[in-house]
Amino acid sequence: MKDHYDIAVVHGDGIGPEVCGATVEVLRAALGPSSPLVFSEHPAGADLFVATGESFPETTFAACRAADAILHGAAGIPGIVHPDGTEAGLDFTLRLRFELDLFANIRPIRLFDGVRSPLAAVKAGDIDYIILRENSEGLYAARGAGAQLRGEVAVDTLVQTRRGVERIVRKAFELARAGKGAPADGVKRVTCCDKANVLRSYAFFRSVFDEVARDYPDIEAEHALVDAMAMHLVLKPGHFNIIVTENMFGDILSDLAAATIGGMGLAPSAEVGLSQGLFQAAHGSAPDIAGKGVANPYGTVLSAASMLEWLGGRHDDARLTEAAKRIRQAVGTAMQEGMLSRDLGGVNSTVEITRALCARLAA
Amino acid sequence: MKDHYDIAVVHGDGIGPEVCGATVEVLRAALGPSSPLVFSEHPAGADLFVATGESFPETTFAACRAADAILHGAAGIPGIVHPDGTEAGLDFTLRLRFELDLFANIRPIRLFDGVRSPLAAVKAGDIDYIILRENSEGLYAARGAGAQLRGEVAVDTLVQTRRGVERIVRKAFELARAGKGAPADGVKRVTCCDKANVLRSYAFFRSVFDEVARDYPDIEAEHALVDAMAMHLVLKPGHFNIIVTENMFGDILSDLAAATIGGMGLAPSAEVGLSQGLFQAAHGSAPDIAGKGVANPYGTVLSAASMLEWLGGRHDDARLTEAAKRIRQAVGTAMQEGMLSRDLGGVNSTVEITRALCARLAA
Ligand SMILES: CC(C)[C@H](C(=O)O)[C@@H](O)C(=O)O
Ligand SMILES: CC(C)[C@H](C(=O)O)[C@@H](O)C(=O)O
Repeated sequence: MKDHYDIAVVHGDGIGPEVCGATVEVLRAALGPSSPLVFSEHPAGADLFVATGESFPETTFAACRAADAILHGAAGIPGIVHPDGTEAGLDFTLRLRFELDLFANIRPIRLFDGVRSPLAAVKAGDIDYIILRENSEGLYAARGAGAQLRGEVAVDTLVQTRRGVERIVRKAFELARAGKGAPADGVKRVTCCDKANVLRSYAFFRSVFDEVARDYPDIEAEHALVDAMAMHLVLKPGHFNIIVTENMFGDILSDLAAATIGGMGLAPSAEVGLSQGLFQAAHGSAPDIAGKGVANPYGTVLSAASMLEWLGGRHDDARLTEAAKRIRQAVGTAMQEGMLSRDLGGVNSTVEITRALCARLAA
Repeated sequence: MKDHYDIAVVHGDGIGPEVCGATVEVLRAALGPSSPLVFSEHPAGADLFVATGESFPETTFAACRAADAILHGAAGIPGIVHPDGTEAGLDFTLRLRFELDLFANIRPIRLFDGVRSPLAAVKAGDIDYIILRENSEGLYAARGAGAQLRGEVAVDTLVQTRRGVERIVRKAFELARAGKGAPADGVKRVTCCDKANVLRSYAFFRSVFDEVARDYPDIEAEHALVDAMAMHLVLKPGHFNIIVTENMFGDILSDLAAATIGGMGLAPSAEVGLSQGLFQAAHGSAPDIAGKGVANPYGTVLSAASMLEWLGGRHDDARLTEAAKRIRQAVGTAMQEGMLSRDLGGVNSTVEITRALCARLAA
């Protein structure tokens, strides 16, 4: 337990400042006047790139590295790109992932009461699993490194290492053992999602998975090909508990999964390594609705709850773990009572939702 | 127009023989006693690999190459793998794709009347688009070529060439121009699905797309990132007309799309190059239900309709194009009348469905 925790807050682009601002208010309300969180704000993003030629200043990077945890809004403005065509605003997330070795991207997929799933056959409680996305290698290892020759050919190389696969698979089994997620049949299981039938790197991923699985005889271990998995997440989402997969597949599947629980607005994400964590909603910067006061803050608020849980666990600080629980409850109740932003089919503004959460947390 | 057309029929594994057998009957019924189709059967698949050590004999390959078109059931038995961990049964499809340069994998996604979508908000007619999957390069270029070192690291390289991207993108715009697919707003559009924000090879894909799009000012051209696309296919499938994408992304998205129209059982696929075509349902070999008489033949039957359409177009043979239309109508009516296999929530056997289709076609 520490006296205080430095939280580096980076608003980023689009709706980033709105959802980040809302979340900091919620955190303050949850922890009260004696809150151990100390917030500092730092610039990064595509807007900054346009203004200064730099998307991720070294001072911001240093502050993130030194902080106890990083809270991020959203980044990127379509069309603001580097010479190789990749987006400038994404440097922040991608550089932190790789340089701070945030190898585990934890994306809980849960259908809240009060939110309508686009899937006809499911109701609240039917969907409650975690996509554990490998976040430090896979196809993303090629980022900034692929080649393009004379406009004739472009290549990117997918890399999977034993160390990288082993640690993410182990994390998956630990999450299952800790009782995270709630599959319909109550069976603790980890599903390895790959394309082992066609590609050697994924066959390798699967073989390492099989090895690690032997250390967890109490947890059911199974395989699914990525194409079949995309189908399963629509047809039988209740089956899953923890899904572990390569970086690129995790990117695709977690957005798909978010769609089944009401859209990206609700999907939190925690990207953690051994000593640092980045917490941000899985959604983008939604420049089209930025500044209009209608952004959905739930994804970022839930990500901040994951931040408190992670910090609390790491520093053995019950104040934080406790606050994390209360925030999640407040979110659950708010949604149940119909406090919904437009993307969820509701009418509430960012400010209304934030006030509702703060009022409940202060009570 | 040819006097007759050689169709190489390869049953493959699992339910392959059942759905192929059904389809040949349907083709016979559609074309009547003077049918110009001449069928020959050839062995391939995982079962064959177990029995003979060979999954795709040279004689079968030669017959496929020489035929006017190839009709395939399904292939692969989980667990029957090559030393590098990839599946033995898949050699057939993958080798044909690459060696016969079947660069365009056309996967029509259409919600039939009588079939229930798992998506609450859609009804028959709301989903009618095509996923055009690049089928000759991308991440699949690494198949059989990736490296694995000392069990420590495995790599696969994604390759995109100007020629490869250009021809598939052009095909996409041609399909749109020809009026294939039916988006809700009636606007002819091609959506380029990539991950250009992060990876150079996908940024390259997008840049070639943008170039080609200039030649088709009559068609709306737009971009979507693959993760967002996975979400869109659940939340707004009616928006899409033709989606063009890289091989691996196409694999994932087409299964996801199939889920939204009732499952893999209904998804046909046509893999065509300049001079040869492979027609098979997008589903797998479903060994668990093989031999039980309950396999859904619609996917293969619809793939055979695509075969007739392709052959008819290529050889200017109205008999075939006509028969393709009649088969599709028969399928539509059969489903509307509730002739559904178990995977579609019905009770009908493969034989019942086949008889119903044949009866209608003979009438
Ligand atoms: C913003 C982008 C770099 C990122 C990714 O591709 O990983 C996002 O889509 C995500 O899922 O976190
Ligand atoms: C069978 C397999 C090789 C194939 C693929 O991965 O392309 C299948 O999933 C498909 O979609 O055609």
